Amino acid sequence: MIVVMGVDPGVASTGFGVVRVAGGRMSAIDGGVIEVPPGEPMETRLARIHDELAHLIGWHEPAALALEDVYFGKNVRSAIGVGQARGVALLAAAERGIGCFDYTPQAVKMAVCGTGAAAKEQVQRMVGTLLGLPQPPESDHAADALAVAICHAAHARTAKAVSEQLTKAGSA
Amino acid sequence: MIVVMGVDPGVASTGFGVVRVAGGRMSAIDGGVIEVPPGEPMETRLARIHDELAHLIGWHEPAALALEDVYFGKNVRSAIGVGQARGVALLAAAERGIGCFDYTPQAVKMAVCGTGAAAKEQVQRMVGTLLGLPQPPESDHAADALAVAICHAAHARTAKAVSEQLTKAGSA
Repeated sequence: MIVVMGVDPGVASTGFGVVRVAGGRMSAIDGGVIEVPPGEPMETRLARIHDELAHLIGWHEPAALALEDVYFGKNVRSAIGVGQARGVALLAAAERGIGCFDYTPQAVKMAVCGTGAAAKEQVQRMVGTLLGLPQPPESDHAADALAVAICHAAHARTAKAVSEQLTKAGSA
Repeated sequence: MIVVMGVDPGVASTGFGVVRVAGGRMSAIDGGVIEVPPGEPMETRLARIHDELAHLIGWHEPAALALEDVYFGKNVRSAIGVGQARGVALLAAAERGIGCFDYTPQAVKMAVCGTGAAAKEQVQRMVGTLLGLPQPPESDHAADALAVAICHAAHARTAKAVSEQLTKAGSA
């Protein structure tokens, strides 16, 4: 059994999604968006994002935190903002000794849809299907967070299978 | 008396400088660089930066944290990095209820050198002169952190003088 938490960080809206893999099946155990009112000072907003994520990490005890690498479609100003939210998300994980893993948007699409060129709606639909949700997640941010969690869970599963094969081959 | 802490955040080297204004004179009470080994995972590096800054804030109890707005000369990848370090610096301040203030590079140069177009070496030299240091700070990062702290201290002093004038005018 493995629990992975995906995070889609942003200073206004931070998506999160928690995925559980057990018995070869994936399911969503939590997901949503941390919304922070824009009127507050940046340091207060970041503290809220940090505290909510720290609470979720304490609650779900994930084995890993997964995040999407986001270097495209951003200008420097918005990149600083995303970086700030990423910083407090990574810190919340570090405070619990949880490892963080970055995946490119292509790797996430590949893991969820089987192609690195999938459209946003396709990713959202497949997230719903893979996790057996009655309908795709309403929020883009929650869907993105669940998608990167699925991506890490798939990679972790493959890595585990490979290491088991190698162990078997080594002991044979 | 006012104590201001300036921070020049970066994932490899974060400069800090603590400036005290009392009796119309400014002095440096601390300054240096938090160096983080590049081999460690990002979340561990950010946790170190956060913890060292939190310790310094607890020690010096500054009234404010001052940071330079850095949107120039960066690509998106390095902006994400700076953003991450900024995020944990702002969080360390928020955890102590300390307000954070951003200044443009021009505003910092203006406050320190009297012109927004001053060269880097000129800023470094003037930081040493204004704070009565035997020589300018060796580290660029510490000098930049002290410079933005001076900038905030100067603005805070002006704001205080103006508000006192307004109070006098109001009661006259």
